[in-house]
Amino acid sequence: MGEGFLITFQPSGVRGRAKGGETVLDVARRLGEGLSANCGGHGVCGNCRVLPAHGSMSPVTREELKILTPSELADGTRLACAARPASGASVYIPEQSRPPLQYVVEGGKSRPYDVAPEIINCYLELAEPRHDEHLSDAGRLLEGIESGYGLTGLAVTLHALKGISGALREGGWKVTAAVRRGEVIRVLPGYAPGLYGAAFDVGTTTVAGYLCDLTTGEVAATDAAANPQSAFGDDVLSRITHASAADGAVRLRDAITGCLNAMLGKMAASAGIGAQDIVEAVVAGNTVMQHLLMGLPVAALGAYPFTPAVKGGMSVPAPDTGLGIYPGGYLVTLPVIGGFVGADHTAALLAAGPRPGEGVTLLVDVGTNGELAIGDGHRLITASCATGPAFEGAQLRHGMRAAPGAIERVVIDPESLEASYRVIGKQGWFRAGAKTGARGICGSGVVDAVARMYMAGILDPSGAFVRGLDNQRVRYDGPDGPEYVIAFADETAAGRDVTVTAGDVRAVQLAKAALLAGAEVLMAEFGVTRVDRIVLAGAFGNYIDAGNAMAIGMLPPCPADRVYPVGNAAGEGAKAALLSGAMMDEARDIAKAARYVELSLYPGFNERFMAAIGFPGV
Amino acid sequence: MGEGFLITFQPSGVRGRAKGGETVLDVARRLGEGLSANCGGHGVCGNCRVLPAHGSMSPVTREELKILTPSELADGTRLACAARPASGASVYIPEQSRPPLQYVVEGGKSRPYDVAPEIINCYLELAEPRHDEHLSDAGRLLEGIESGYGLTGLAVTLHALKGISGALREGGWKVTAAVRRGEVIRVLPGYAPGLYGAAFDVGTTTVAGYLCDLTTGEVAATDAAANPQSAFGDDVLSRITHASAADGAVRLRDAITGCLNAMLGKMAASAGIGAQDIVEAVVAGNTVMQHLLMGLPVAALGAYPFTPAVKGGMSVPAPDTGLGIYPGGYLVTLPVIGGFVGADHTAALLAAGPRPGEGVTLLVDVGTNGELAIGDGHRLITASCATGPAFEGAQLRHGMRAAPGAIERVVIDPESLEASYRVIGKQGWFRAGAKTGARGICGSGVVDAVARMYMAGILDPSGAFVRGLDNQRVRYDGPDGPEYVIAFADETAAGRDVTVTAGDVRAVQLAKAALLAGAEVLMAEFGVTRVDRIVLAGAFGNYIDAGNAMAIGMLPPCPADRVYPVGNAAGEGAKAALLSGAMMDEARDIAKAARYVELSLYPGFNERFMAAIGFPGV
Repeated sequence: MGEGFLITFQPSGVRGRAKGGETVLDVARRLGEGLSANCGGHGVCGNCRVLPAHGSMSPVTREELKILTPSELADGTRLACAARPASGASVYIPEQSRPPLQYVVEGGKSRPYDVAPEIINCYLELAEPRHDEHLSDAGRLLEGIESGYGLTGLAVTLHALKGISGALREGGWKVTAAVRRGEVIRVLPGYAPGLYGAAFDVGTTTVAGYLCDLTTGEVAATDAAANPQSAFGDDVLSRITHASAADGAVRLRDAITGCLNAMLGKMAASAGIGAQDIVEAVVAGNTVMQHLLMGLPVAALGAYPFTPAVKGGMSVPAPDTGLGIYPGGYLVTLPVIGGFVGADHTAALLAAGPRPGEGVTLLVDVGTNGELAIGDGHRLITASCATGPAFEGAQLRHGMRAAPGAIERVVIDPESLEASYRVIGKQGWFRAGAKTGARGICGSGVVDAVARMYMAGILDPSGAFVRGLDNQRVRYDGPDGPEYVIAFADETAAGRDVTVTAGDVRAVQLAKAALLAGAEVLMAEFGVTRVDRIVLAGAFGNYIDAGNAMAIGMLPPCPADRVYPVGNAAGEGAKAALLSGAMMDEARDIAKAARYVELSLYPGFNERFMAAIGFPGV
Repeated sequence: MGEGFLITFQPSGVRGRAKGGETVLDVARRLGEGLSANCGGHGVCGNCRVLPAHGSMSPVTREELKILTPSELADGTRLACAARPASGASVYIPEQSRPPLQYVVEGGKSRPYDVAPEIINCYLELAEPRHDEHLSDAGRLLEGIESGYGLTGLAVTLHALKGISGALREGGWKVTAAVRRGEVIRVLPGYAPGLYGAAFDVGTTTVAGYLCDLTTGEVAATDAAANPQSAFGDDVLSRITHASAADGAVRLRDAITGCLNAMLGKMAASAGIGAQDIVEAVVAGNTVMQHLLMGLPVAALGAYPFTPAVKGGMSVPAPDTGLGIYPGGYLVTLPVIGGFVGADHTAALLAAGPRPGEGVTLLVDVGTNGELAIGDGHRLITASCATGPAFEGAQLRHGMRAAPGAIERVVIDPESLEASYRVIGKQGWFRAGAKTGARGICGSGVVDAVARMYMAGILDPSGAFVRGLDNQRVRYDGPDGPEYVIAFADETAAGRDVTVTAGDVRAVQLAKAALLAGAEVLMAEFGVTRVDRIVLAGAFGNYIDAGNAMAIGMLPPCPADRVYPVGNAAGEGAKAALLSGAMMDEARDIAKAARYVELSLYPGFNERFMAAIGFPGV
C-alpha cells in the first residue's frame, strides 16, 4: 500500500495517490490526467471545476466562494486547484474542464488534435521588489513563469518590455503574460485571459478566414472574401506580370493586406473583441500569394524553372507585414512544397492528407490551380496541374463562383433530354418553368452537366455535340456554336438562358484531362495502378458528384463510397497549425517529406493529357 | 612515415602532411594554422597570400594571375587557396595573411582576442537552378553556405529574402551573404566584402563611437559627441523626470537616436562607406541611457528600489530603433549589472576587468556617476556611487570638460605658492605670464590643484582654506569666498582668472569621499583590507595623477606603479563585443556573475563617507 489518499479520476479511471498537501490539480497533473487550468492554478479562471465523490476534501476556500455559483457549491463542485483530498476519493472531470480538442478530416475520418498552440497565457501573482534583490521587471516575470509554468530560458521581446513595467505596477504585481516560441510577447495587468489568433487560406480567387480563441480552440468567427488582387489579373501568372510593373508589387500587396485587415476587423467585431486582441495570424496560400503578401519578389516564379525565393514557413513581426493585429504579434506562413504546390496544399495535406494504414490515398485540391498528392502515410508525392478556371465556374459562357444563384447540380433525362437542377441557396430540384432565380452555373454544376450530356448521348466520346438531335434544349446555332440549355430565360434571375456551350465542354475536358493525367503520373511515380481512396478538398470537392466526375474521366477509378469530400482543407489546416504546435511541426514535416514532380517536364505527360481529353467508354 | 608531402608553416613551425589534391589552405585549416580567407577559398579576396620555399607547388592559376602583382609573382607569392603542394615544402604566412587580432587592456596588461564577430561574410559561387531539383533561392543559398562554410540550420530573414532573388541573378549566382547568429541578414551580388559595425559608449554626458571593419577588426573611424539629452537635464535623475512629461521620453529618445545617426553618418563618410554598409551597432550605456534609447519606460528607475525593465542585453532590428544603419541589421545592447551599474560598466569590465592570477583589482570608472568593481577573476562585486559631476569638470566655478583649453595638470610650489600647469592641446608646462589660452579647468586639473593646495599648506586637513596667507594667488574675498588663482586673466582665452574656489574644493571632497567610501565597502564585502592594483577607466582616469588622487584620499592606498589608467574602457569593451562573439559571451557572463551592492542602503556607508571627506595625514 502506498502513502497518501487514493484518488480515482472519472470517467478516465486513471488513479494514483495524493501526496501530502497536494491539490486535486497537482495530482491530475502528476498523473497526466487532462484538466484545464488557464490561470495556472491560481483560483482565478474557474476552468478546473471538478465533482468529487465518495470521499472528502479540504474546506471550500475564499477563491472558490468567489467563482463557484450557489448551485455549484450545493452540488459539491470544487476547483481542482483549491481542493485537497482529505480521504480517498473519486473525482469526476466534466467535459468542459478537459483541455480542448479540435478535429481534422483524414482519409475520410476525423482525427482529433489537442488545442495546444505555440502561444499560451501565463497568469502570474508575483512578489513586489525588495531592496535586497536586484531583479529587473523582466527577470521577475521570467522567474514567475519558470516557477509557475516550468518554462525556462525565455526572452522578453522589446515590444513586451515597453509595457512590462506599467503592467506589473498597474496589476499590483499580478499580470498575464503571453508566451510564444521562447519569448514573452505581451504582458497585460491582472488576469487577462483573452488570446486570439486568425487563420487564413489565401487563394488566388477567394480568401477564407477563421478567428479562433487560442485558449479553447473555439472558432469565434469566420469570414470569406474575394481576393481583391483579382482586379490585377485572374491567375497567378497575370499577378506576377502585374508585379513587375512600377509599384505593381506594392499595389498587389496592399490589396491583399487590406483584404485581410478588413476580414480581421469584421471577425473581431462579430466576436466582440478588438483586432489588437489577435496575437497571431497563420496564413496558408499558394506560393505566389505568400510571396506577394510578404513583399518578396515573384519574377522568378513566373518563368522556368519557377524558383520561389523561399519555401520554408516564415514568422514575421506583424508590423513588418502591415497586418493590423497586436503589434507585438506575428504573421506566420506555412511552408510551400514546390513552385506551384503552395502552402495551401501543405495545409490541405495537414488537414486531410494520407495517413498510415489507410492504403494509397489521392488528395485532389481544385482551386484556380489543381494540386494533387498521392501518399500512404509514409511516402508523399505532389504535383500541380494547370486545370484552368473551369472548375471554379470562371470563363464559362454562364459560369459563376459557387455562390447563391449558381446551378450546382444537374441531371438530364436520357429519354427526353430534359434537365433538372439545384440552385445554391434554394431548396430542392427544379425543372423547366420553375422560377429558380438561377444566375449562372458553377464548377460542380458544369461537371454534372457535361457528364449527363455525355450519358444522355448529347455529346459523343470525343466531347463533340452529337449532330441532328431534335430537342429544344439542344441548339446548334447558339452565339458560340452548339449549346445545351439548362435553364430557360424565364426561370433565371437575369432573364436569359443558362446554357453549356461547346466551348464550355472543351474547357471542362481540358481541365479534367490535366487533372487525370496528373493523377496518372503520380500513380506511376508512386508505383500503383489504382488508389484506395480519393479525398476531394476545396469548395468544389464538396459539391461535386463523384460518380459524374468519374464518368467523364476526371478522377481515376475508385469506388464512389471511398471518395471523401472534405471541404476547405487548406483553411482547416491553417487553423490546425494555429491551434496546435504539434500540427505546425507536422506541416513542416509534410513540406519537407513531400516530393514534387514538375508535370510540364515529365516524360509522357503530354501524351497522357491528350489521351485523357475524351470521355471513357460508358 | 605518413603519406603525402610534409608541409611546415612558418613562422609557427606547425607541420603536417598534405593529402592528395589538398590546397595549402586546406592543409592549414586541417592543422588549425591561422590563415585568412575572407572569400572562403574561392580565389577572389587575395587574403591568403603565402610564400612557399624549399619545395614546389602546382602551377600558378588564372585566379592568381588576376590577383597577384607582377612583383609578387616574381618573388614566388601564392594564394594558399590555389597552390597545391607538389613536394614537401616550407610555407611562410606573412602577418597580413593571419586572422586579425584586437587587444583589450586588463590588469594593466593588454589581452588579445580574435576578431571573430557574430556576423561573417560568406562568398558563394552557386550553380544555376536545374529543372530536376526544386530548391528555392533561399534553399540554394543555404546549401552553398553549408557546403562552403559548414554552417547549418540557418534561416534567412525576411529582409534578406526580399533581395535574395535579385542578388543571385544579378551576380550570376555568385553572391556574398552576411550571416549573423543563425540567420542570413544580407545577400549582395558578387564578391562584396564590405562589412562594418559600430560600437557606442553612450554616456550621460558624452557619446563615443567607433566604426569598425568586421572582417579585419580595424577601426575605420571614431567620433565623440556631447549627449544632446543634456539639454533636458545634466544627470540621469533629471532625464528620468523629463521622461515622465508628455512626449518627454520620445524627445529624449529622438535626441540620442539623432546623435548616434549623425555620428554614424560622419564616421561612414570619413571611412568612405555608406551608413547602409553598417550592419550592426553595439551600444554600452548606463541603464537609463539604454532604456531611453530602446524606448523602454524609466519611471521605475527613478525611485526606490530602482528597478530596470530589463537587465539582459537586447538585439533589436535596426528599423525598430530608428537607427539609420542597414535596415536588415540589428542594434545590440550589452547587459546591465544593477540599477545604476549599467552596461557601460559591463563593457569596462570586459575590456579592463580583473583577471585570474593578478591579485585583487579595483576598477574605478568615473563619469557623471562613479562605478566601482572589485574582483580577482573569480568573484566580482560592483557598486555605483554618486560622485557628482566635479570629476568631469562640471559645476565648478571655472570647470570644463577635458577638451582643448582645459587645464589638466597643476603643480604648486610649496614655497612660493606659484602654480605651473598644462593645457590640453598645448605642449609643455606654463607659468605665470605665459599666453596659454586656458579656458577653464577639467577634472584631472582640479584634483591636481586640490592635492597640491593641500600639500602646499593652502588647505587644511578638513579642506578649509588656511587663513592669513599673504600671496597674490590666494584671495579670501573672491566672488564665492576664498579661492586660489591658477591662471591669471592675461594668460587665459577669456581674459579672466581661472581659480579654484572653496566651493570647488568642497565638490572635489564630496566626490572623492563617495568614491573612497564605496571602494572601502567593496573591499570589506570582498574580505580584503587592501587591493593589489587599481585600474582607472574613463577619460578622467587617463589624465589623473594617481599620486595626487591618493594624496587627497580619493583612492585606497596602492603603489603608484600598480595604478593603470586604461582610457575609455567602456568604449573598448563595446568594440570588443562587436568584434568578437566570444567577448560578447563574456560580457553576458560578467553581467550574470557580478554581484551588486546598493551603497545607499549599505550599513555604515554614510559613516565611511563622512569620515572620508577630509584629507589623509601628509
